[in-house]
Amino acid sequence: MQKQRIVSGMRPTGRLHIGHYHGVLENWVRLQDRFDCFFFVADWHSLTTEYADTAGIKNSTREMVLDWVAFGLDPQKCLVFEQSQVDQHAELNLILGMITPVSWLERNPTYKEMLENIEQRDLSTFGFLGYPVLMAADIILYKAQHVPVGHDQLPHLEITREIARRFNHLYHCEVFPEPEALLTETPKLLGLDGRKMSKSYGNSIYLSETADETAAKIKGMVTDTQRIRRADPGDPDQCVAFNLHRIYVPQEKQDEIIPACKNASIGCVECKKILIEHLNERLAPFRAKREQLSQNAGFVDDLLTEGSRRAAIEAKKTIQDVRAALKV
Amino acid sequence: MQKQRIVSGMRPTGRLHIGHYHGVLENWVRLQDRFDCFFFVADWHSLTTEYADTAGIKNSTREMVLDWVAFGLDPQKCLVFEQSQVDQHAELNLILGMITPVSWLERNPTYKEMLENIEQRDLSTFGFLGYPVLMAADIILYKAQHVPVGHDQLPHLEITREIARRFNHLYHCEVFPEPEALLTETPKLLGLDGRKMSKSYGNSIYLSETADETAAKIKGMVTDTQRIRRADPGDPDQCVAFNLHRIYVPQEKQDEIIPACKNASIGCVECKKILIEHLNERLAPFRAKREQLSQNAGFVDDLLTEGSRRAAIEAKKTIQDVRAALKV
Repeated sequence: MQKQRIVSGMRPTGRLHIGHYHGVLENWVRLQDRFDCFFFVADWHSLTTEYADTAGIKNSTREMVLDWVAFGLDPQKCLVFEQSQVDQHAELNLILGMITPVSWLERNPTYKEMLENIEQRDLSTFGFLGYPVLMAADIILYKAQHVPVGHDQLPHLEITREIARRFNHLYHCEVFPEPEALLTETPKLLGLDGRKMSKSYGNSIYLSETADETAAKIKGMVTDTQRIRRADPGDPDQCVAFNLHRIYVPQEKQDEIIPACKNASIGCVECKKILIEHLNERLAPFRAKREQLSQNAGFVDDLLTEGSRRAAIEAKKTIQDVRAALKV
Repeated sequence: MQKQRIVSGMRPTGRLHIGHYHGVLENWVRLQDRFDCFFFVADWHSLTTEYADTAGIKNSTREMVLDWVAFGLDPQKCLVFEQSQVDQHAELNLILGMITPVSWLERNPTYKEMLENIEQRDLSTFGFLGYPVLMAADIILYKAQHVPVGHDQLPHLEITREIARRFNHLYHCEVFPEPEALLTETPKLLGLDGRKMSKSYGNSIYLSETADETAAKIKGMVTDTQRIRRADPGDPDQCVAFNLHRIYVPQEKQDEIIPACKNASIGCVECKKILIEHLNERLAPFRAKREQLSQNAGFVDDLLTEGSRRAAIEAKKTIQDVRAALKV
């Protein structure tokens, strides 16, 4: 039986941190075995918010794709490509825009939230208003049956589904399946300072950093802010560092630490050492692979060129169906 | 010295009437000798308003291009192509949308006017809001220095110029010239019923109709509504038919008719005969050429395919410049 298709993309944000890994990439790696996966660098999407400063996009693409492959995406199993290298994204975006009511875009909750909250950049552009149209094009261009999303992304997927339905309805066809959400639990990872791990907060542990860099960062990490002296009892549930123990430290070890923290028989320094050891151990083979891949200067370019060529074959088929339906 | 470049397009509206000819096409024919002209079928633009009924676009394209060539466009002198066959229109449209403030589009006077006045179709779509962005892409994709426009089109051209300027400014480059208006006097031609000649009013004389069809239409045409009986004096300035005499009948003949109408020595029937004779005589060679071209089933397809291929060469060069400026 043919595998069902999944499409998912990431904006080229540069080196990924462990929050990206556990939030998205690790899930992609799992999905590549069960589905026909199309994973793309959403570089056109970067322009929706970063149009005034595009200098870093190319390098960010390279760093991100190195992380993708080093940390488990297998280009033999999934298609890895670059949105801007497949012309049909722009074409389908143009066509879908023609049938998308402006009101669907204006009521998009993320749109309203970002317009209100982001003050450093001017997001009152046509492209930013229309990014759900571009997202819809990205997904249905490959006739994806499923899209891995978190809860916060559901409104976008709903617009995609509405646009697909409207196209089929207007042109009396069944060109596009309505992609379904593959809901993914993505626990928010806390960064070094206790806020959500985010590149812009400078509180991240990067996949590609060295074991020593990671160790130094964790040593300076916030723990339980109520535990001031070594002799004070702590609470792992209130400890920022312990949100990483839960991911990297084996359960039986966690079960030893929890009471030891609560009765102050283990100190934060020792406890962090345990985390550092397990975290670095877990990432070591991936980091070694990344180091090796990055030696090959042409690796990412070649991968994206070949992946985009293959993606374009599928994209062209869909555009043929679209044009037949439109009779243009 | 290299000729300066002009870009201009028409939506595929089907067979052209004499209002289109004297308003736009005749001017294009004059321009093709003095400029490097890119004339295109704006079929993507049709979707901005006709997305719900696209069945006629292909045939309208064919009929319109037959008129273009039969009535004087020379594919040896100018480039005739189809927007949807050159992928780069959609790509540049996507990119320019990223830097275009929604407010520029919302304040577009034609947009507001059409949203308010057109009731049969729902124009509250993203694509309709964005059509000036697509227009800008169409023009600057070929780095046009001039655009032939009427006064009513000046606000669109101004948006194009603003978008070109903003791109150059944001990316510290000189990729796009700011195209200048080549203002064209386009006297409104009255139709058979005295309203503006328009396909939707059913009051048009088509370039491609037969001499007999034209004769029958003019015989039934409104003249001076105040001249009720043959013996009444008429006023050519108030005569709907006479707006065509001014175009088709030689000046010396007009100079005879004017006093004869005013003193009722010539009747409307006789006067229309003169018009019919001159109009049909003027259009006859073009109509014969059209008839001949239309015998060749592949003529329009071949012309548009070859023209689009050549246009795409220029378009790709510009996109390379655009991507270099954007660093993507």
